Amino acid sequence: MPIIRVEMFPGRTLDQKRDLARELTDGFVRACGGAGEKLHVVITEVERENWGVGGELMSDK
Amino acid sequence: MPIIRVEMFPGRTLDQKRDLARELTDGFVRACGGAGEKLHVVITEVERENWGVGGELMSDK
Amino acid sequence: MPIIRVEMFPGRTLDQKRDLARELTDGFVRACGGAGEKLHVVITEVERENWGVGGELMSDK
Amino acid sequence: MPIIRVEMFPGRTLDQKRDLARELTDGFVRACGGAGEKLHVVITEVERENWGVGGELMSDK
Amino acid sequence: MPIIRVEMFPGRTLDQKRDLARELTDGFVRACGGAGEKLHVVITEVERENWGVGGELMSDK
Amino acid sequence: MPIIRVEMFPGRTLDQKRDLARELTDGFVRACGGAGEKLHVVITEVERENWGVGGELMSDK
Repeated sequence: MPIIRVEMFPGRTLDQKRDLARELTDGFVRACGGAGEKLHVVITEVERENWGVGGELMSDK
Repeated sequence: MPIIRVEMFPGRTLDQKRDLARELTDGFVRACGGAGEKLHVVITEVERENWGVGGELMSDK
Repeated sequence: MPIIRVEMFPGRTLDQKRDLARELTDGFVRACGGAGEKLHVVITEVERENWGVGGELMSDK
Repeated sequence: MPIIRVEMFPGRTLDQKRDLARELTDGFVRACGGAGEKLHVVITEVERENWGVGGELMSDK
Repeated sequence: MPIIRVEMFPGRTLDQKRDLARELTDGFVRACGGAGEKLHVVITEVERENWGVGGELMSDK
Repeated sequence: MPIIRVEMFPGRTLDQKRDLARELTDGFVRACGGAGEKLHVVITEVERENWGVGGELMSDK
């Protein structure tokens, strides 16, 4: 039932996304129980020019 | 005033999005009242390779 | 598969939430097709003092 | 840098949340690399009466 | 039209929230133009036990 | 620590985004205190055909 969303920079391969969906699902089940079959993982890729930390865009760092 | 967000796969036509904004707005008003004039609907299209269910990406299913 | 989230003020009854889940699900299916069985609706209730419009909190309007 | 958000039902203990933050952080690093020191995990607890699936609230199932 | 959401720890006073809605609205208008009348600011307060950084809950730090 | 997200139409320049990250960070600190070094600003650009107000897409207005 749970929904997990990830915001990260672009550039991960399909294999990394595949691993990520698996790792987050299994990690949730280890920590909280349940079966994981209906757990959603939604990945959002955020460009460095759309992500600021400390008032500065990551594309400027 | 309410804000409704939809995450769905890409591929819907402009007409479907138009219907979706109308349906969700009218449906909210029927259920909860109010006028709907200021209701926002924000659609996010999520690629199948960015959406996992049960630890598996939808692009692999 | 789609996920719909609603942000709205508190104060709706359980019956209104029940209607809302049904209305948004059916409305999505009418606009975009699919079966709706796996469609999620997640409601977040936001206090008026946590919602500003035009720089002013709704609790002050 | 990544941000992971989890929406789940209430009722997990502090220890389960502690494990969850650790599991999701480590799982992200295993799948995607990086150090994880700055990875955020934000948990949102959603009541069953605020979560519908297939047009029906989870509190009614 | 824009929507700004803020996730922060609980504990801010109503006056601080009032200032926050004003500051974020005015700051957006200075940076990006527009009138700000329809700009939404939605604040979510996240408990320290629901926020992890580097795999550790903020309530444990 | 706080996370600020902005949803807005596409079309802002890199300079405007730079100003936006700075303005929102400084505005948060003025209103709520803290140092701002770890404050995240995440910008999401939403196409007009994906944003409805009052049941009508912004691309149709």
